[in-house]
Amino acid sequence: MSAHGPLIGVLGAGQLGRMMALAGIPLGARFRFLDPNPDSPAGRLGELVVAPYDDADALRRFAEGLDAVTYEFENVPAAATDVFAACSIPVYPPPEALRVSQDRLVEKETLNDLGIPTPPFVPVESFDALRRACVELGYPAVLKTRRFGYDGKGQARLYDDADIDPAWEQLHGAGPLILESFVTFDRELSLLCVRGRDGATAFYPLCENTHRAGILRESVFPAENAPDDQARALGGRLLDHLDYVGVLAIEFFDVGGRLLVNEIAPRVHNSGHGTIEGAETSQFENHVRAVMGLPLGSTRPVGVSIMHNIIGNWPDRAALLAIDGAHVHDYEKVPRRARKIGHVTVRATSRDAVAAPSNTVAELIKASADG
Amino acid sequence: MSAHGPLIGVLGAGQLGRMMALAGIPLGARFRFLDPNPDSPAGRLGELVVAPYDDADALRRFAEGLDAVTYEFENVPAAATDVFAACSIPVYPPPEALRVSQDRLVEKETLNDLGIPTPPFVPVESFDALRRACVELGYPAVLKTRRFGYDGKGQARLYDDADIDPAWEQLHGAGPLILESFVTFDRELSLLCVRGRDGATAFYPLCENTHRAGILRESVFPAENAPDDQARALGGRLLDHLDYVGVLAIEFFDVGGRLLVNEIAPRVHNSGHGTIEGAETSQFENHVRAVMGLPLGSTRPVGVSIMHNIIGNWPDRAALLAIDGAHVHDYEKVPRRARKIGHVTVRATSRDAVAAPSNTVAELIKASADG
Repeated sequence: MSAHGPLIGVLGAGQLGRMMALAGIPLGARFRFLDPNPDSPAGRLGELVVAPYDDADALRRFAEGLDAVTYEFENVPAAATDVFAACSIPVYPPPEALRVSQDRLVEKETLNDLGIPTPPFVPVESFDALRRACVELGYPAVLKTRRFGYDGKGQARLYDDADIDPAWEQLHGAGPLILESFVTFDRELSLLCVRGRDGATAFYPLCENTHRAGILRESVFPAENAPDDQARALGGRLLDHLDYVGVLAIEFFDVGGRLLVNEIAPRVHNSGHGTIEGAETSQFENHVRAVMGLPLGSTRPVGVSIMHNIIGNWPDRAALLAIDGAHVHDYEKVPRRARKIGHVTVRATSRDAVAAPSNTVAELIKASADG
Repeated sequence: MSAHGPLIGVLGAGQLGRMMALAGIPLGARFRFLDPNPDSPAGRLGELVVAPYDDADALRRFAEGLDAVTYEFENVPAAATDVFAACSIPVYPPPEALRVSQDRLVEKETLNDLGIPTPPFVPVESFDALRRACVELGYPAVLKTRRFGYDGKGQARLYDDADIDPAWEQLHGAGPLILESFVTFDRELSLLCVRGRDGATAFYPLCENTHRAGILRESVFPAENAPDDQARALGGRLLDHLDYVGVLAIEFFDVGGRLLVNEIAPRVHNSGHGTIEGAETSQFENHVRAVMGLPLGSTRPVGVSIMHNIIGNWPDRAALLAIDGAHVHDYEKVPRRARKIGHVTVRATSRDAVAAPSNTVAELIKASADG
C-alpha cells in the first residue's frame, strides 16, 4: 500500500489478464504482461513485453524484478517455468497444476486417484487402440487431443463404428489422444475456487453454464438448487493436493445431482466473469489477492447475475447499456467469427428480476449476425 | 465497441482520473491524461502528457485526436478550454459549469437566481467591507477565498469581532473573498447526479458525509431518511440550467430537513466513491457514459455502503482486506500528512449488517498514526 506496490507478471495479455489488472490495480498491484501480440487487451494496463512465450531472452527480461508470476492460459511452456525457477520467482498457481491440467489423461488420472469422479476414459495411442476403446466405452463417445484443446477444438464425437475412421483421420496427427464417454448430463456447472498462500480456501457458489457450438454462451451465478456442498468437497481436495495458490475452475457435468468433472482450468475462467458484479469479491480480485499473499475476499453472491458472452461481433452498444442492470465488458479485440470479444453481465436482486433484462440482452446478441 | 474505442482526454491524472479510467476501460474507452506530475495515480492507465495545465503547446499535443475532454478538478485554466474550443473538441462538463463553480460568489448567485437556497453570503472586497459584512450576517461566519479553496483550505472562521483582524490578515492576500454565514446544520449530505448528452438525468440517493479538520472522512450511501426528492428537484434545475453533461456533485447542509447548498463540484466527487460497489452503476462509469454520449446506468443502491478515506498513511493492509465486505482502493500515492491516498468501502446487505465491519475499518484507520 504505497507508491510502489508489488509487480505481478502475467503470461498472456488477453481479456483474463486485462480483468486481473482492472481488479488488482485498486489493490496497489502493478502488472507486466508477456504476449506475442503487441495490441493485446491487457497491454495498456501495465508494461507489455512482446515476444513468444518460449523466448528465453524475453522471458528473462519479463522476469526481471517481478514479485510473482501468474498466467491466463494453461499451456505455459516448460521453458517459461524453467526461467522463473532459475530466477527464484514464485509461480502461482504452481507448475504442478499446469502439468496436471495440460494433459487430459494426467488430469483425469489425478482426479480419479483423489476419488474425484470423471466420465470413463481410455488413452488412445493407435487406430487399433481407438477401435478397442470404442468397444470398451461404447457410444456416444468423444475423441479428444490430450493437449491444447479449447472451446471444442481438437474434438470429434463418435456415435457408432462408422465415425471411427473420420475421427481418427481428423485427430491422429494432433498428438496423443484420449477417448471419453459422452455422458448424458442434466446441466453443466462450474466451480470457481481459490486458495491463498497460507492454505486458506474460498468457494464461490456454482455457476450454471450454457454452451453452443462448443463455446460458452451464458453463465448463471449462482446456479439454482445446485450441489454446492458436493462441489466444494471435491474442489477442496484438489486444491490441497496441488498445494494450489490462486483461482481454480472446475467444470462439472451434473448427472442427476451427481457431479462428474469434465475438465479443470488452473486460472480464472470465463464462467466466473459474472462474479465481477455478482459476488462480493470477483474471481479476478481473489486471484490477485492469493498471488499477492493477501487474505481472500468474500465469495458471497450479490443478487443474481447472468453473464452473456459476446462472440464474433457487438450488438448495438447503446441498446445494451440502456438495459437496467447490464454491465458491459469490451475486451477491445478486433471482431472476428467465433471470437470472444466481450461479455455483458446482467445483475438484479432476484432470479425473477434478472430474467427480463437478461432475455433482452440475449435477444440483442441473437439479432447481431454471429451471436 | 471495437478495437478502437473513443479516446477521452482527462485534465489531471490523480485518483479521480484513475477511477474514471478503471470504469471506462471496460466500456472500450481509451484515456489520455495531462498532469504536471510524471508519477500520477492515473498515469499508467493511459497515455500521459506531463506538463502544466496552461502550457499551450502541451495542451495542443494533449488535444490531438481526442473525442472529448473532461477533467478531475474545477480550476481548469481558461488557456486549456480555449485550446479545446480552437480544436473543436467538446469539453464535458461544459465550461459554463467551470465558470460558475470556480468562484464561490458566482456559484451562490447562480444558485439563488435559480431558487436554490444557500447560506447567506456577502462579497468582501476590503477590510471595511468585511466589517460591514460581519454586522450584516452576524456570527458565526466563515471568510473564504472566492477561488481555489478545497479541503478547508483558504478559510477562516469568525466567532466575534476579535476574529476580524486575524481572518483578514490570513486571507486578504489570496484574492477576492466572500463571507458566508456559518449555518448550524444537522448533517452534511451530498447529491451525485449525472446528465447525458441527450439531456437525460439520473440522481443517486443522497450520501451522508462526515468531515474532520476540513477533510471528508466517511460517507454513508444511501443516507438514512434523507430528503432525496428535495435534492433531486434542486439538482435537476441546476443540471438543466448549465446544459450539463457528466457527473455533478452538490454538497448540502441539512437544516431540519431543509437543504442549503454549501458548494458544487462539476465532477466526480470523493463523497461518491462508495458508488463503485454501492450502486448498480458507479459515479465514474456514469460520468464516462455521459461523456461518451451513451445511455446512463441505474443509480440504484446495492445494499448499504460506508466509504472511509485513507488519509496520510495506510492501516495494515491484510487486516483491512480480512474484513468481510471491505473493498480497498489504493491510489498508489506517496503517503504524506493530510493527503488522501486511498479509500476503503464496506458494503453489506443492510444498515445493521454494515455497522460492525465499518467500525472495524474505522478503528484500524484510527490506530494508524494520521487517521
